[in-house]
Formats: sequence, structure tokens, C-alpha cells
Amino acid sequence: MMSINFMDMLQALQAEGKFVCLGLDPDITKIPRSIRREGMEHYNSLSANSFVVFNREIVERTHDLVSAYKPNFAFYEAYGDIGIEALRKTILHIRNVAPAVPVIVDFKRADIGNTNAGSIKMAFDYLQADAVTVNPYLGREALQPFLDYKDKGIIVLCRTSNPGSGEFQDLPVAFGNGHVTRPLYQVVANQVASKWNTNGNCLLVVGATYPDELKMVRDIVGDMSILIPGLGAQGGMLKKQ
Amino acid sequence: MMSINFMDMLQALQAEGKFVCLGLDPDITKIPRSIRREGMEHYNSLSANSFVVFNREIVERTHDLVSAYKPNFAFYEAYGDIGIEALRKTILHIRNVAPAVPVIVDFKRADIGNTNAGSIKMAFDYLQADAVTVNPYLGREALQPFLDYKDKGIIVLCRTSNPGSGEFQDLPVAFGNGHVTRPLYQVVANQVASKWNTNGNCLLVVGATYPDELKMVRDIVGDMSILIPGLGAQGGMLKKQ
Repeated sequence: MMSINFMDMLQALQAEGKFVCLGLDPDITKIPRSIRREGMEHYNSLSANSFVVFNREIVERTHDLVSAYKPNFAFYEAYGDIGIEALRKTILHIRNVAPAVPVIVDFKRADIGNTNAGSIKMAFDYLQADAVTVNPYLGREALQPFLDYKDKGIIVLCRTSNPGSGEFQDLPVAFGNGHVTRPLYQVVANQVASKWNTNGNCLLVVGATYPDELKMVRDIVGDMSILIPGLGAQGGMLKKQ
Repeated sequence: MMSINFMDMLQALQAEGKFVCLGLDPDITKIPRSIRREGMEHYNSLSANSFVVFNREIVERTHDLVSAYKPNFAFYEAYGDIGIEALRKTILHIRNVAPAVPVIVDFKRADIGNTNAGSIKMAFDYLQADAVTVNPYLGREALQPFLDYKDKGIIVLCRTSNPGSGEFQDLPVAFGNGHVTRPLYQVVANQVASKWNTNGNCLLVVGATYPDELKMVRDIVGDMSILIPGLGAQGGMLKKQ
């Protein structure tokens, strides 16, 4: 069996002019009544199956347009074990309908080295994801078990799309004599591009809500792929990028 | 029904001289053969139930000695949906055997504001946890949905126990004219103590592997509770604290 590589899959679709990564983040209150069932706010298999049905509709209408799907784990874990199973079924469906489209599990994990093995099993064995998002705060050494998966995309949070992301991400980090500083998110971008990416499987997250910071990160990381969330509901606009 | 408050539970046990927070992180290879079943490395209900049986033994022998239990989510999500269910059953068992002992779900979450609602449902509704760990990188504004749970403990990563935690956590953050700097983990400690803790429900994580940094954090945060992982296998020693 041929090894499936996330970067290859992504680049093949980008070569076709496809650049949209579509989130699959089901919100009960926004699911149409025709799919939604009564009482599905509670933990029951009806609601989990409604997620699967809802996602299936989206995938069937978009799979020839997108470069990736990105379900966010939090929207599924809200429903406990059956939510997790609904996520597995959603990804299985994407595999069947659109085997060329990679799936990013957005779960922003970071634990100490060996503990990450559990999250890796969740993402790559159980869910069969092609890529995951991770949080850089614990450093490369902690995330090495993720980075070692050469065929998987490891997407590192850099400058997140939320309004308050600057609290730590913008802090001025001193260099040399202390007269020169650089915001923390730029240090993260530089470390990932220059030290973490030995397998060529790293990407960064920079919110569409911060077009100026996005430009700075682009200058630092060259042609590394950047995942840019925050278009639409969060107020990011395509023309600003 | 009386509201159950994490800080009250923790302080009541600490007043009895109990300070040990016991991890419940089942590792298949370390579970005794009498409990372990053949083939349980795979996703099946036998292995999940073995976790529950194993944890139950630990809880029954320790519940009058500890100040908290701390299962790490990653060890359970390794087994997909049935692992998550095993975690729920483990916590339910602690409730029955030791209702006075709080349970910390160590899942190190951090997403943009509203998305955290899903992880909150997992932790506080489905798992019935008393406290959770969170990652500070996205800032307070993102974590506010967690902080708003006044009766739950919100335990923020500050200086983590892993060998490479200094990559970002030790970066010198410049103040004023840039001649004065402070490591990032100390800025995190200061922000959490002075700005995030309006509900008095915040704690910090500082690894036992960094006794000097622990002392610095203690000086910054006064009498705030600090969760100190890393004793034992990771090399931290009690006498150094």
C-alpha cells in the first residue's frame, strides 16, 4: 500500500487552484430542522448521528472544491464518547467520498513527550487524520512525537485568530543586548521554520483577523504553508490577505 | 443541592495534611497481567474496562490519602470513544467511593473563546470533573469561558515539567526600556495571579523538575495553589521543593 503524505495531498489540490480549508464544526443550533432531532442537545446517539448526516451533506457538496477538511475536536467532544464516534464516522465518510482530500483534526494538543502518544493514537489510528494542530507552549522537545510522523501535517499555532491572542503572543522577546525585541509569535514562527521542520511536515496557524502579522510570518517562513482561520464569522476578510 | 466548589474541596483535604495529587494515567504495558487481557492493545471494550478495573483498585487503596485525582485525557483518548467512556466510568467510581476528593481532568485545552464550550461540556457535563488544566498561549480572553466556571478549578500551565519547556517559557520578555527582562513563564504567572483570577478559581502548573523556577513562581503568586507534576518517573524530588 502506498504511503499517503499530507503535504503531497495538499500540494496536489493547491496545484488545481484549491486553497480553501473547510471547517466541519457542527453547532446544534445551526443545524437545519430537517436533519436535527428533538432533544438532541443531550448526549444521545441521535444527535451524534445528526452530526454525521449534516457533515455528509456538506462533504458531498464541497469535496471537489476544497483543499482540506478541518473538523474541530471540541465540537465533537461536547457530546462525550458518542461525539468522538461521530467524528470518526465523519472522517470515514470523507475517505470514501473524497479520498484525495486530506483531513486536519484541529485539536490543539500539547503535553509532555510521551503523553502525546495517546493523542497521536486518537488522531492517526482511531480518527485516521492526515494532519493535526498543536500548541507550541511546551516546546519542540515535547512535540517531537508528533513531528516524527513524517507523512502527517503538524500545524503549529503561531498567531491565533482570537481578539485577545496578543496577551502573550505579542510580548516583546529581547535579543542580544536587549535593545532589539521581536514579538513572541514571530519567535515561534522562526523556531518552527528553522528548527522544527526537519521532516518538512510543519505548517503554521495565523488568523485571517491579523493580516499585518500574517505578512510578517510569511516573510519569516518563506513558502511554508499557513493555515489561516477566521474568515467569515470571526471577521477576517479574504482581500486583506 | 449544594454547589460543589473545587477550591473548598481541595482546601478541606489540605487542612487534613493531604497534598498528594495522584495521576490516573493507565499504561497498558504496566497493568498487571491479572487485570490485563490478551489483545487489549487494540480498541475494544475489554481494554477500556481493564482501565476502569485498574483505576478502581488504585482509588480504593488511596482515596483516604490524596487531595485530588488527576487522570490525563491523552491516556484515555488513545482508545477512541471507548477510552473516553472508560474515563467517565473511572470518575463516576471516584464519586461513589470518595465524594470528597476532587477530580482534575488534565487535558491542557485552549481554543478560541466559543469553541472552548465544547471542551467545557466534555469536562464538566460528560466527565463531571471538578477542575481542568488549560494552556495559556491564546490568552485570557480565549479562556474566559473556562474561567467563568467559578466552582471549577482552572489550572493554567506555567512552567511545564518536560526537559525542553524552556524553549519558549524561558524567553526573556522585555519591560520598559528593554534593559529589564523577565522569563515568559513568570509573565504568565503574574498575569494569571493579577488579572485572570477574579473568581479565585485559578491554579498554576510548575514542574517538580524545576525547583528554582517553582520558588520564583511562588514569590509571584503568593498563596495560590500550584500543581507540581513530575515527581517520580520524570526525576523531580520532593526534598528539592
